[in-house]
Amino acid sequence: MIEPKVLSKIESIVGKKNFSATKEDKICYSYDATPLLQKYPDAVVFPEDAEQISKIMKLANQEKFSVVPRGAGSGLSGGSIPVDDSIVLVMTRWNKILELDESNLTITVQPGVITELIDIEAEKIGLFYPPDPGSIKFCTIGGNVAENAGGLRGLKYGVTKNYVLGLEMITPTGEVIYSGGKNVKDVAGYNLRDIMVGSEGTLGIFTKILLKLIPRPTNSKTLLAFFNSTIQSGEVVSEIIASKIIPSMIEFLDKTTIKCVEDYAHLGLNTNLEALLLIEVDGSKEEIDRNAELIHSICKKKNAVEILVAQTEAEALRLKTARRSAFSALARVKPTTILEDATVPRSKLPEMLEAIQKIVNEENILLGNFGHAGDGNLHPTCLTDERDYSEIHKAEKAFDRIFNTAIKLGGTITGEHGTGLSKSKFLEAAVGSAGLEFMKKVKSSWDPNNVLNPGKIFTLKPKCEGALPKFKNDIKEFSTNL
Amino acid sequence: MIEPKVLSKIESIVGKKNFSATKEDKICYSYDATPLLQKYPDAVVFPEDAEQISKIMKLANQEKFSVVPRGAGSGLSGGSIPVDDSIVLVMTRWNKILELDESNLTITVQPGVITELIDIEAEKIGLFYPPDPGSIKFCTIGGNVAENAGGLRGLKYGVTKNYVLGLEMITPTGEVIYSGGKNVKDVAGYNLRDIMVGSEGTLGIFTKILLKLIPRPTNSKTLLAFFNSTIQSGEVVSEIIASKIIPSMIEFLDKTTIKCVEDYAHLGLNTNLEALLLIEVDGSKEEIDRNAELIHSICKKKNAVEILVAQTEAEALRLKTARRSAFSALARVKPTTILEDATVPRSKLPEMLEAIQKIVNEENILLGNFGHAGDGNLHPTCLTDERDYSEIHKAEKAFDRIFNTAIKLGGTITGEHGTGLSKSKFLEAAVGSAGLEFMKKVKSSWDPNNVLNPGKIFTLKPKCEGALPKFKNDIKEFSTNL
Repeated sequence: MIEPKVLSKIESIVGKKNFSATKEDKICYSYDATPLLQKYPDAVVFPEDAEQISKIMKLANQEKFSVVPRGAGSGLSGGSIPVDDSIVLVMTRWNKILELDESNLTITVQPGVITELIDIEAEKIGLFYPPDPGSIKFCTIGGNVAENAGGLRGLKYGVTKNYVLGLEMITPTGEVIYSGGKNVKDVAGYNLRDIMVGSEGTLGIFTKILLKLIPRPTNSKTLLAFFNSTIQSGEVVSEIIASKIIPSMIEFLDKTTIKCVEDYAHLGLNTNLEALLLIEVDGSKEEIDRNAELIHSICKKKNAVEILVAQTEAEALRLKTARRSAFSALARVKPTTILEDATVPRSKLPEMLEAIQKIVNEENILLGNFGHAGDGNLHPTCLTDERDYSEIHKAEKAFDRIFNTAIKLGGTITGEHGTGLSKSKFLEAAVGSAGLEFMKKVKSSWDPNNVLNPGKIFTLKPKCEGALPKFKNDIKEFSTNL
Repeated sequence: MIEPKVLSKIESIVGKKNFSATKEDKICYSYDATPLLQKYPDAVVFPEDAEQISKIMKLANQEKFSVVPRGAGSGLSGGSIPVDDSIVLVMTRWNKILELDESNLTITVQPGVITELIDIEAEKIGLFYPPDPGSIKFCTIGGNVAENAGGLRGLKYGVTKNYVLGLEMITPTGEVIYSGGKNVKDVAGYNLRDIMVGSEGTLGIFTKILLKLIPRPTNSKTLLAFFNSTIQSGEVVSEIIASKIIPSMIEFLDKTTIKCVEDYAHLGLNTNLEALLLIEVDGSKEEIDRNAELIHSICKKKNAVEILVAQTEAEALRLKTARRSAFSALARVKPTTILEDATVPRSKLPEMLEAIQKIVNEENILLGNFGHAGDGNLHPTCLTDERDYSEIHKAEKAFDRIFNTAIKLGGTITGEHGTGLSKSKFLEAAVGSAGLEFMKKVKSSWDPNNVLNPGKIFTLKPKCEGALPKFKNDIKEFSTNL
């Protein structure tokens, strides 16, 4: 526990109205969107400016408490879960769009801006902010940058990293640093910006984010193809890429997911088939017609049972709804939804789909599989019940096997959710022991007292291990009071 | 000087045939393409495999000598110039293309492969490796990655960083680490790969490089527009970008450069005008026609005196030759050519062009200005004579003013050449003192004995300052023997 006199010092930095140590607030900020993890912070603070954050970090280094930065808490790897002796630093009030620069095609935002609003703002002047994580309607851009969030359009347009031009941030020791800017080329010194993107709140706290925008594509075409075999749907993906077409979207849904989506959204999907692919191409009219035709013929060659081509914007939206509602649809089935993001090189997708199916059967779990097939980025989603340890144990065993299979196929343990707490045990297998060692060197040199979001991604000091959050079931602190 | 017994140990690691301490070799590896800098190494080694490099780095840490890695030596910021007590580690023999993976659109190469060969290999199967630094015909990909090299196609296609998917590298302490891979999405742990790109040989030595390829554009159109005012040519660039068109190339040449190019290549250019823009658009036929027409009308509106549109592939090549030969054409004029790469946000281009003109007039230097206008990345090139100190002094003063102007306009000291030795004195102004401090923390934590290419980008320990290379004139060591 942080000592009361230290909490008072923190309160005096941010002011009474921006500080809370009430039970209600501690509960609200004890979890994020990651299942199974929860821990109460000692206090919750809402800093108003960079100077306050800087002072908090300096105090944290003096008094040795931990600071856990947090946006909307939509993360899926436990990156914003409190740790022992920690305060949560909430950035959601930093929600201003600071500048839209039409002549340089950039937008500058505060970290608490909801991601979708950035693209809405860009669209007003014919520009486009492509990254679209599933949580786009409620996640904040600071979290997107911290996790290097992906989304449905990654295949053609890349991920958050590809749009971050500049960052203003507070270091773990309280300095303000800037990296990058409006120059589209800049090689002055080390590229600190790109190691900050995806650093999961462990290397700094963003206070200003400069993003690249691109001209908005004017035409697109959406197709939906159904298959009798998941493996064949995977082969279609490989063949499209090998044909030198880069669609703006190739999304996959397996049978379980199709059924749940149909139950949830009543789109008239054929629920008897094994897999569907949602494919979108964009570009000039000529280009999308040519590419859509080529994709159509590849789907046919691979025995697609049914191929729908949206004839109107509204119909395209309806088809895309099938994919966009996958997570919500699956989440209704059982009390606990464990959404993962094992990723493999695109050419290994058929093998990975087959392996997941085998693991699901052998471990006897209920799992819906969907995801960004064009990126080899799958979201195997286990529908389970956290109150039942044997269920959770089965799920964990299945995911262990899934991640190990991904690594064996040259893949990775996380394509877009981050390592956080959930996947730190797999990190060494994914990046090698020397790779892990050199990541730790960066962290230790920037955060010598290990006060900024410690224990996430990896554990620096053994003392932290006991301090990590556990299953919610283990948290009894308030249970009798509520 | 490195002691003879240590040199013997180095020789025994790489073998007699891969080690040289002859005067001839020391001279050959004493300089790169950066003017004014030269220093002799104590030996030159040509390692054959990763294990030898690892052993050399471990020995360097034990015996405290420095290792300067080097490819073709085409760098323009002195990144591969030897330092005190150093050996040069030459990677040009690592010139194999290891794999071309058509299903994942990747190519794996050794660091000594000449950049142009990568695109030639990709082209055979309809793919494209876009980064095209001016030295494309002789520079090596390892150096491109180390410097994050740019080129003419940066505007639409980005720079080297945007194509590096994975790296195998030897750390300063001799460990082998891997970062990235064929997964198009991967957020497992810190993004070490992207801090390695542009680290100028100070954080590791690449032994394997995995690059992304993209489908090759099938159509392009090339325009050449002449202007009576450099500022108006700069305004054309801003207006094209603001019109939401991203050409594959917008290159600028000023009057001095046009004249030199015409003298050199006899292309029939109008040498009486102040500036020319070379603009290329690519994409579908429909798209390039529409965009070329729009660009044509913007040029006309901004009083272009003459606009040429290439009607054939051969004519397009002829127009592009005007730009591609700019550096060679300027380099013929005087004994010493100092090519710089001050960069500003695109919208600041007219202001920057005006400022450079003013500085050139006031400092009374001979300067040709050209560059990647679409990126705000200019190459003001001073034509001078290194044997004349007063000339060099004037050039240095002019460049000081040019870099400070770039920084004042929100620009940077280097868009694509790197900081190296030439620009380290400007780095703090460009990235801030806290930013510089955090870069040094990374270096110190990875290279605690400061043995890998020390003194480049920044100086870690004061002792190094005296050890840095000086003007060639100061180097007398071999002068009497040659």
